[in-house]
Amino acid sequence: MDTELTITAVLRRAEQFSPRREVVSREPDRSLHRSDWAGVGRRARRLASALQGFHLAPDTRVASLCWSHRQHLELYYGVPMAGLVLHPLNPRLHHEDIAWIATHARDAVLFVDASFLPLLEHLRATADGVPFDRVVVIGGSGDAHAGAVDYEELLATGEEQWTPAEIDEHATALLGYTSGTTGRPKGVEVSHRALVLHALSSSLQGWLGLRDEDVVMPVVPMYHALAWGWPYTSALLGAGLVLPGPFLDAASLLELIEDEQVTMTGGVPTVWTSVLRELDAAPGKHDVSRLRAILSGGSTAPPTMIEGFRDRHGLTVVHTWGMTELIMGLIAEPGVQERALPPGELESVRHSQGRPLPLLEIRARAEDVEVPWDATTLGELEIRGPWVAREYLEAPEASAEQWTADGWFRTGDIVTIDPRGWVRIADRAKDVVKSGGEWISTPALENAILAHPAVAEAAVIGVVDEKWGERPLALVVTHPDRRVTPEELRAFIAPSVARWWLPERITLVEAIPKTAVGKIDKRGLRATYAPIGDPS
Amino acid sequence: MDTELTITAVLRRAEQFSPRREVVSREPDRSLHRSDWAGVGRRARRLASALQGFHLAPDTRVASLCWSHRQHLELYYGVPMAGLVLHPLNPRLHHEDIAWIATHARDAVLFVDASFLPLLEHLRATADGVPFDRVVVIGGSGDAHAGAVDYEELLATGEEQWTPAEIDEHATALLGYTSGTTGRPKGVEVSHRALVLHALSSSLQGWLGLRDEDVVMPVVPMYHALAWGWPYTSALLGAGLVLPGPFLDAASLLELIEDEQVTMTGGVPTVWTSVLRELDAAPGKHDVSRLRAILSGGSTAPPTMIEGFRDRHGLTVVHTWGMTELIMGLIAEPGVQERALPPGELESVRHSQGRPLPLLEIRARAEDVEVPWDATTLGELEIRGPWVAREYLEAPEASAEQWTADGWFRTGDIVTIDPRGWVRIADRAKDVVKSGGEWISTPALENAILAHPAVAEAAVIGVVDEKWGERPLALVVTHPDRRVTPEELRAFIAPSVARWWLPERITLVEAIPKTAVGKIDKRGLRATYAPIGDPS
Repeated sequence: MDTELTITAVLRRAEQFSPRREVVSREPDRSLHRSDWAGVGRRARRLASALQGFHLAPDTRVASLCWSHRQHLELYYGVPMAGLVLHPLNPRLHHEDIAWIATHARDAVLFVDASFLPLLEHLRATADGVPFDRVVVIGGSGDAHAGAVDYEELLATGEEQWTPAEIDEHATALLGYTSGTTGRPKGVEVSHRALVLHALSSSLQGWLGLRDEDVVMPVVPMYHALAWGWPYTSALLGAGLVLPGPFLDAASLLELIEDEQVTMTGGVPTVWTSVLRELDAAPGKHDVSRLRAILSGGSTAPPTMIEGFRDRHGLTVVHTWGMTELIMGLIAEPGVQERALPPGELESVRHSQGRPLPLLEIRARAEDVEVPWDATTLGELEIRGPWVAREYLEAPEASAEQWTADGWFRTGDIVTIDPRGWVRIADRAKDVVKSGGEWISTPALENAILAHPAVAEAAVIGVVDEKWGERPLALVVTHPDRRVTPEELRAFIAPSVARWWLPERITLVEAIPKTAVGKIDKRGLRATYAPIGDPS
Repeated sequence: MDTELTITAVLRRAEQFSPRREVVSREPDRSLHRSDWAGVGRRARRLASALQGFHLAPDTRVASLCWSHRQHLELYYGVPMAGLVLHPLNPRLHHEDIAWIATHARDAVLFVDASFLPLLEHLRATADGVPFDRVVVIGGSGDAHAGAVDYEELLATGEEQWTPAEIDEHATALLGYTSGTTGRPKGVEVSHRALVLHALSSSLQGWLGLRDEDVVMPVVPMYHALAWGWPYTSALLGAGLVLPGPFLDAASLLELIEDEQVTMTGGVPTVWTSVLRELDAAPGKHDVSRLRAILSGGSTAPPTMIEGFRDRHGLTVVHTWGMTELIMGLIAEPGVQERALPPGELESVRHSQGRPLPLLEIRARAEDVEVPWDATTLGELEIRGPWVAREYLEAPEASAEQWTADGWFRTGDIVTIDPRGWVRIADRAKDVVKSGGEWISTPALENAILAHPAVAEAAVIGVVDEKWGERPLALVVTHPDRRVTPEELRAFIAPSVARWWLPERITLVEAIPKTAVGKIDKRGLRATYAPIGDPS
């Protein structure tokens, strides 16, 4: 009973049993490309076959720098099927960070959207440089990038009937880097087995409940861990798939939802806030009646947004919670017992972070002791399961810190768990800001600010922001004899961090409070400047 | 990412997230016992803990001779959690066969319903005898069987907080014997991993689509492979569970369906035929409006029965197809593409054997060559997947015969596969009769008949029977100088086969046709005496 759980088996399922189910992808010129699972299979096999011509060692890492589109989908299948590892890079990171990540991962090949070629030039010019031996350009104008291969020309060298070799289910299929914690980004390897089990569990009814009649549109970009499930669940169940390409504005998304009769979609709250604003601005303009669930993850969705969708547009927003280390972990879809609760309690469940997917297990601990599931006692959320990572790539110290001795992953979120297993985030153990679903490392920002000669102390915390969920607030103490303005500080750090990391609010203060052991009292600062409401 | 897929994890899921979801079980006195998943968990842990006191080696086999009830459910969890193997014995088999199977399996312990104690006496008196070192009696009257332990007394020695040791997912959890092929029954070992993956896949929406709001009642007895999924799927999803005990008559089942608001049930066509008769006899008497699907498996359901449920009672019968070697394999729930077909074609899909569950793969071969999926070409159905057995227990020759060199299981069914993957059984490669969902081995019957001194030749084939689906027909040629009546033959074979194997029809003929190589031409005989209609 040892058939391997592999991406190849998932694709074969779609090719054999849902060959005509449509896969729609938005092109750079905004037109829609229509294919189906049989077509995706043919091209993914072609790609995997063509990759043999590169003579790469097994488990070689192949990077992508792409929006969510059909070629990226082909990479999601073709690269792992070829016995290689797909490593989707996040183009929104600072180019120094991207270069560092690609170098750390030793990415031997890069598949890059033509629109990201200028970014590639920046990457090449960094101190780290980039390790790519080969570059393949997707959607190029024929005027190929120096030394690069055109994606379609590469595919033309492959065989669409190509049959991959048997792959061990524990082999790595995807590699992603998390930037959610302090210090350098850390690599997370995801096995074929993990992706298949995640796809099965996350598709169960009563939870995500994906069905073959669904048409799903992942809005969260494919370079994000929260998007890693969709390409596989849709194939496994034979659902239709819609990929929005680079057009993530509310009007473009609503157009796709309406025209392609999308039934399920998922993204960060920032996106849904703008979609809600667009819907409110033109009542009745968009027919979104087919949409049965909007999954919202990456950061906590404001209750007013959840209620706005429900009350004004009859749409259901479902909270999800995930991390690079575990893809999707919690989902706040009320079960049969919760649906019998009084409305207020039901709302509280909907606004929580949710319960774990089947096969995942959770606990919360404080001072190394497990806390009771009493909805009151705080502890750090820990999680384990067949698709939860067990270590970071070549980072033993960070791994030792992030996993317990008995193998549970420490999420860094301080939570309560109620008697029925619903998790509510109360605070953060780790020191990060989540803006538009992306992590901003506060120590990294603090270090950039501290580099200014006038600065004596700096502390960055997250404050609630209506549009981005959270934005960084910097508190700065200058040396007694020095002066610096917030504008000067912003200009000073601008070259060294991503543009969207730049804090709008930099506040000069007399002193920054410390804890008993002399560390900056972030929890106290957050209580003063950015109180987090009682999540219940 | 190597958390093990185990039965322990499935139970923990139900204990933590659906502790109050009800589990109802019919007692021998017809009363209903009400518990919930937390209660099942406490007693299963008690049982597993108490079993430690038996000091059994890991993987020791523990047999059960039980109806479907709460204690059997506790065995389904407690025995595998204790690192042991549960081996449900089929009490409907001939006692010589049961004794042979228990001996072959080296079952060291037996859990037996008090009502089956007379059968145990028969088993002890057989030539093989029985290997049980220990006997535990469920539901005994206190007046314990000689040397046996009372189930409740055993549980009292256990701890309900007991935590099982980590178990390798490839360890065997269940053992079942198949009697579907010629020769001796063969053992099939089912791993923890296989059961968990089967539970996930068979619960996916668009297929079985089990949900937490469902209340499921397996009518197929728990000693049958087709029942192996339900105890685990219901726990994984937090569904309610109803176990009918020994009362499988139509009136008792309809009473449970109505009173317990059952939404999903499954059993052999024979059961549903009698349920349909009961419903037809008293229109409006039973409120079955909560029942959203009746799964029918074990043998092909007559189209008139499927249509009767639909047209007269608004109930949906879904064909399933399974075997001991793979639990549930195919299911005939139309997908989104089929629901768009014209009614006639949709009916044809519903009447087919179905498509494989996600993660299972099928092919059909004739003369060692794969046949096209053209709905026309006949081939033997072969299947593989993460819960399909790879061999029989200690039966290398039978294993070599039943599995291909590349590891596919040969089902023995001659089928067509259509371009969308729907399987239709056209004939049988193997020589068996399926009566009321149970296999009758025709060679075994023939050998019993041939033992009579007057018989020269005998051939048994299956003929269509309205109540049982199929019944054996025996064709007999006597020696020129001998005479024997059908009644004499029936009396002669009665002691050596199960009562329900006895053919109602024994026909004396002049000669039995042979194939080119001199074998009895079973296919020719079936064409003459029991033509199988075009299943499309």
